[in-house]
Amino acid sequence: MTALTELMAFQRDTEALGEVAGRLGWDQETVMPRGAAEQRSAEMAAMEAVLHARRTDPRIGDWLAAATPATEVEAANLREISRSYARNTKVPARLAAELARVTSLAQGKWAAARAADDVAAFLPVLREVVDLRREEASALATDGALYDALLEDYEPGATEAGIAALFDRMRPRLVSLRDRVLGASHAPAPLEGRFAEDGQLALSQTLALAFGYDLEIGRIDLAVHPFSSGSGRDVRITTRVAETDPFNCFYSTIHEVGHATYEQGVDPAHLLTPIGRGASMGVHESQSRIYENQLGRGRAFTGWLFDQMTAQFGDLGISDPDAFYGAVNRLSPGYIRTEADEVQYNLHVMLRFDLERDLIAGRLDVADLEEAWNTRFAADFGVAVDKPSNGVLQDVHWSVGLFGYFPTYTLGNLYAGCLFEAMKRDLPAWENGLAKGDATACTAWLRSALQQHGALRMPAETIEAACGHAPSEAPLLDYLDAKFAEIYRL
Amino acid sequence: MTALTELMAFQRDTEALGEVAGRLGWDQETVMPRGAAEQRSAEMAAMEAVLHARRTDPRIGDWLAAATPATEVEAANLREISRSYARNTKVPARLAAELARVTSLAQGKWAAARAADDVAAFLPVLREVVDLRREEASALATDGALYDALLEDYEPGATEAGIAALFDRMRPRLVSLRDRVLGASHAPAPLEGRFAEDGQLALSQTLALAFGYDLEIGRIDLAVHPFSSGSGRDVRITTRVAETDPFNCFYSTIHEVGHATYEQGVDPAHLLTPIGRGASMGVHESQSRIYENQLGRGRAFTGWLFDQMTAQFGDLGISDPDAFYGAVNRLSPGYIRTEADEVQYNLHVMLRFDLERDLIAGRLDVADLEEAWNTRFAADFGVAVDKPSNGVLQDVHWSVGLFGYFPTYTLGNLYAGCLFEAMKRDLPAWENGLAKGDATACTAWLRSALQQHGALRMPAETIEAACGHAPSEAPLLDYLDAKFAEIYRL
Repeated sequence: MTALTELMAFQRDTEALGEVAGRLGWDQETVMPRGAAEQRSAEMAAMEAVLHARRTDPRIGDWLAAATPATEVEAANLREISRSYARNTKVPARLAAELARVTSLAQGKWAAARAADDVAAFLPVLREVVDLRREEASALATDGALYDALLEDYEPGATEAGIAALFDRMRPRLVSLRDRVLGASHAPAPLEGRFAEDGQLALSQTLALAFGYDLEIGRIDLAVHPFSSGSGRDVRITTRVAETDPFNCFYSTIHEVGHATYEQGVDPAHLLTPIGRGASMGVHESQSRIYENQLGRGRAFTGWLFDQMTAQFGDLGISDPDAFYGAVNRLSPGYIRTEADEVQYNLHVMLRFDLERDLIAGRLDVADLEEAWNTRFAADFGVAVDKPSNGVLQDVHWSVGLFGYFPTYTLGNLYAGCLFEAMKRDLPAWENGLAKGDATACTAWLRSALQQHGALRMPAETIEAACGHAPSEAPLLDYLDAKFAEIYRL
Repeated sequence: MTALTELMAFQRDTEALGEVAGRLGWDQETVMPRGAAEQRSAEMAAMEAVLHARRTDPRIGDWLAAATPATEVEAANLREISRSYARNTKVPARLAAELARVTSLAQGKWAAARAADDVAAFLPVLREVVDLRREEASALATDGALYDALLEDYEPGATEAGIAALFDRMRPRLVSLRDRVLGASHAPAPLEGRFAEDGQLALSQTLALAFGYDLEIGRIDLAVHPFSSGSGRDVRITTRVAETDPFNCFYSTIHEVGHATYEQGVDPAHLLTPIGRGASMGVHESQSRIYENQLGRGRAFTGWLFDQMTAQFGDLGISDPDAFYGAVNRLSPGYIRTEADEVQYNLHVMLRFDLERDLIAGRLDVADLEEAWNTRFAADFGVAVDKPSNGVLQDVHWSVGLFGYFPTYTLGNLYAGCLFEAMKRDLPAWENGLAKGDATACTAWLRSALQQHGALRMPAETIEAACGHAPSEAPLLDYLDAKFAEIYRL
C-alpha cells in the first residue's frame, strides 16, 4: 500500500467517527432524555478524545511527507488533512482540553446570564474563554496575526484586513438603504394572526421538498434552535414552530434545507473523505441564504407560498400575492440578529466582527464590552439597547469560543449575491419553476456549479469557479437596492 | 495514580464509547433515514475498531497484573474487565473481523431466505457462520468445551452439561402440562377485533409508567422488533403496534420495560463501569419475564388492564375480568417461538439448544439442520412444520452467530420463577398495587434485591443473593402448573 492509500483509509475511519460524534449532537438536541445530560457529556468527551488522538496521530505526518497526489481530488484531500493536522498538532493537548472544559461551562453560564439579564455573571467566564482563545491563536498564528489564525477554522484563506476593508465598503450602502427604507412613506403591512402548529409543520415539509431536500437521506425534527447536522448520506435538519410566527418556521426550514441540500449534493465519490462536505462556513451560508432569501423570499416563490398558506390556513388577512411579498420582506427596527431582515442582518454582523477582533487583539477589555456594544449599537442602529439579552448577551457564539465565526455570515450573503447573479444569467427562466413551488432547476444549477464539489477548492475559489469571477460585494448590494427600492417605492 | 485508578479511568471511556455504539444501533432501528445504511455500516465498523483496540490494549494486562482491589465493587469490576480482556485477546483480529463481515452478510441472506421460504439459499452462509464460531470457540475454550466457551458470552458460569440436565428435568413436566391444557374440555375465548393504534400506544405508555419505567432517562419509539437499548441514564425502549393484536403491543412493551427498568435501576455509583449493567442475558430476561408474565399476566394486573382497555376501546367482546384473564393467558398450538405462551416457549428454546450444540460439536451438519428441526418439532409439538419460515428460518439468532444465546431465555424464566416466589414471601400483599395498575412495590422489591447491584455478582449468585437460595426450576414449574390448572380447570 502506498502512503496515500494508507492515509486515506485511516482518514476514512476518522471521518466516520466524526459523523458519529456529530450525530450524538443531533441526538442531544432532538431526542435525548433530559436526565441523560451528564452521561452524555462523558460520552462526548470520550469521542472527542478518540478523534483528537486520531487527528494528531504522528503517522499522519509521515504519510503526508511520503504521499504524492496524482489527481486534483487527491491533492485537495491532502490539503485538507494537512491543514487539520497542522492545526491540531500546534495546539497543546492541555490547552485543547481546557478550552473544551471552559466553553462547556461558559455556555451554561451564558444561558443563565441571558435569562437573568445579568452581564456581570457572564464576564468572568467570558474572560477565561477570550484568554484561552488568544492563547490558542498565538499557538496557531505563524506571523502574530491572531484573528487570522482563528478565521482559518471557519473560512480558510480569509483575512481580518480583507474582511475589514470589505465591510467598510459595504456599510455605507447598507446604512443608506436601511435609512431610506425605514423613512419611506409607504410600507407593507405585516402578517398577523395565529397559525396552527401542525399546519405549519406540514407546510414546512412541503417547502423542504420543494427545494430538493431528500428525505431518503435526511429527516426533519423539532428542536429549540433550527440546525442542520451530518454529511454524506445522513443529513438531518430541525425546525421550530410558534403559532404567531409562521415565517420563522418556514424560512428557518428553508435556511436549514440550504445547508443540508449542499451536504446531500456533494458527489458521493467524496463520501467520508475530507472534501466530502461544504467548503467553509461562508460557502455553507451562501447555500442557506440563497435558498432562504434570493429564492425563498423572491416574488415568484412567495406568490406560490401565498396560495399554499391560504389553502392551509384560510384567509391570511392579506389581500394578494403582492402584499404578501411585502409582508415577507418588510424591515423593522430590532435588536436581535437572528430576527433581522436581509439588509440589517449584515450590520449586526459588522458590529460583532469589530468588537471581537478588538477583544482578540487586546484592544478591548471584557469589562468594557457591554459599553462598547451599546455605544456601537446606538451609532449603527439609532436605538439604545434596552437590556443585555437584547444586546451583548443575545448570541451564544462567544460563550463557546466562536471568535472568527461571525463574519462568515456576511461572506455567505455576499457569495449568495454572486451565485444568484450567475444563476440568473445561466437560467433566464429561473422564476418559472419557483412560481409553481418547484426549485428543481435552481437546485440543479447550484448542485452542478458548486454543491457537488464539496471542499475540492478553497472557499473563494469555490465561488469563483461557480460564478466565473472572484467574489465581490456588488451583486448583493445591487440586488438589495433594487429589491427594497421596489417594495418601499423609494 | 495507582494501576487500579488508571485502569478504571481508561475503562470509563471504553464504557462511554460502548454506549455511543449502542445508541447508533438504536438510531438505526428507529430514526435513521433509509438511504443512510451503507454510510452507517462504515460508521459502525469504525466504532467497533476503536472499541476492539481499547478492549485489547496491552496496558490492560499490565494494569490488571498490578491492581489490588480493596472492595467488593473493585473486585467485581476487575473480574469483568479481566473476562473481557481475556476473551478479546484470545480471538485473533483476523477472525474477529471475518466474523463481523460474514454475520453482517448472513443476516441479510437470512432475511431474504425467510421471506422466500428458501432454506437452500441460507445454508452456505450459515455454514460459514458455524465454522467461524467453532473456530472462535476453539480459540476461547480452555478444555475443548466449545459450547461452554460460547455460553460464557451470554451467561457466565453456565455450562452445557448443567443446562442439558436442567432441561431434561423440566421437559417432562412442561410437556405434560401442555398436553393437559390443549386437551382440556374448557378453554378461554381469545380477544378479537380491531383496536386503534393511537389508543394502543397511549395505553402502552401508561403500562410502561405503571411498571416504573422512567421517561426522564428513557423514551419509547416504534420499531419493527421491540428492543431495549442502553445503560445508565439513557435507556430507551421500542414497541410495535398492530390493530388486531393489542396484547402483542402491551406485553412487548412490558417485556422491554423489564429490561430497561433493570438498567435504569442499577446504582448510579456504578455508572460507566463494567458492573453498571445487567449481570447476564439470563438475569436480564428474568426481569423482562417477571414483569411480562408473573406480574403483567397475573390476575390482579389483568383485572386493571381489562378496565383500562374497556375505557380506551369500549366493549371488548369479553364479559368480565376473569374471562379477560383467560384470554390473556390462553394456549394454542403454534410454530413461532416469539408468539408462544409461557408453557410452550421453553419447549421452543430446548429444541434450539439441542440443535445448536450439535452444530457446534460437529455432530450435526448444516445440510441436515432442516430435517433435524422438523423431526424434533413434530416430536415435541405434535405438528408438522408447514414451511421453513415457520421452522428453521424463523429466528435471526444463528445468522448473526448467536450460538449459546437461546438457553438464556429459559434460564431467565427459571430465575423469574425463583424471584417471584421470593417476592411473594417478602410482600404478602403484592397484588394490591397491581390491581390498581401500580407496580411500585414489586419494582422496589426487585430493585432492592437485584437490579441495583448490576453485575456486582455472577449470574447465579445474583439470583441466589436475591432469593436466598441457588436458582432451581421448581418454583417456575409449580407456578405454571398452578396457574394453568386453574385457568383450564384441569
